Amino acid sequence: MKKNILFVLLDQFADWEAAFLAPALRGGVTPDLPGRFETLFAAPDGQPVRSIGGMTVQPDRDTTALPDDCAGVILVGGMSWNRPEAQTVAPLVREALGRGLLVGAICNGASFLAANGFLNEIRHTGNTVEMLRAWGGERYTGAARYEERQAVRDGNVVTANGSGTLEFTRECLLALGADTPEAVEASYAFNKQGLYRS
Amino acid sequence: MKKNILFVLLDQFADWEAAFLAPALRGGVTPDLPGRFETLFAAPDGQPVRSIGGMTVQPDRDTTALPDDCAGVILVGGMSWNRPEAQTVAPLVREALGRGLLVGAICNGASFLAANGFLNEIRHTGNTVEMLRAWGGERYTGAARYEERQAVRDGNVVTANGSGTLEFTRECLLALGADTPEAVEASYAFNKQGLYRS
Repeated sequence: MKKNILFVLLDQFADWEAAFLAPALRGGVTPDLPGRFETLFAAPDGQPVRSIGGMTVQPDRDTTALPDDCAGVILVGGMSWNRPEAQTVAPLVREALGRGLLVGAICNGASFLAANGFLNEIRHTGNTVEMLRAWGGERYTGAARYEERQAVRDGNVVTANGSGTLEFTRECLLALGADTPEAVEASYAFNKQGLYRS
Repeated sequence: MKKNILFVLLDQFADWEAAFLAPALRGGVTPDLPGRFETLFAAPDGQPVRSIGGMTVQPDRDTTALPDDCAGVILVGGMSWNRPEAQTVAPLVREALGRGLLVGAICNGASFLAANGFLNEIRHTGNTVEMLRAWGGERYTGAARYEERQAVRDGNVVTANGSGTLEFTRECLLALGADTPEAVEASYAFNKQGLYRS
């Protein structure tokens, strides 16, 4: 029985930020080998959400609870993480952290973690430390642990900026043991560099 | 009135292959400037399709016709371009080519173009020339015009391999005049290299 990874999408989510991780988990990191996880997509109230690119996604479930057999939750960035409906996601993050599951947050997903005080005790990154300060106000006291890197993994928490999709994917796959480290690195290099060098 | 770009999705489409182009068209190439196009997503019979990553997309329309005010059609790669339902897309491509609209095809979208004889007279690329030969059989006579590059634009036709998402995006944006060439290049460089270099 494969474990589930829950992707949280809000309206105006960033099309590209789950677009490498979800297929690597479900479809496989290594070509022609099956994926080791199932993916589920959640949105507030279980209602459809539209990406920045205009694609309408019908979610599999709402954001009231983690699924059974959950191995991680991924906050996909976008334009709505400062809106009221995002607050339904904070209890999911708290539960996932308490159970030692993977929590991945990219772009404004990381901003949301800062705004809710989840980044104060761990090494992390995001869309610049200034943005985390702006989102977090006095709830964000972790600026000394901010690292200027594409993606940062500290224990079970992976953060990234919005241009760090591939590095975010790599760190989440490594954290989950989704394939061998060599296979994860090879997949990263292929996507980063491309089949052809021009 | 913004013109429409039609993205064609089949079941088991590749999550990442439209994930930079659609938001750049609809959300804008330059941060804080609006996009110059609308996006529409089509699938056979207008029925929901699921990505390789497991995301269920509710399409805006079926594949029987190009939308009004159409400026281009994008064939998003995936695992179903050799299935019967893909053949509903060939007339759309033929009409778009006849009207001089942008036709973009990535990964097995390009394989599909080869299989239907659309790549024989133009410079192009794809998932290796061997794969285009395998898909096209005697209908593919364009191997001498195959180029080992991430993405190739010849007139209004842009092709790419499945790792060439960013280069495909760049060439389509340039072909459409979605922003200035400098802005398109800056967006490409940001996404390719990232905010941070480690």
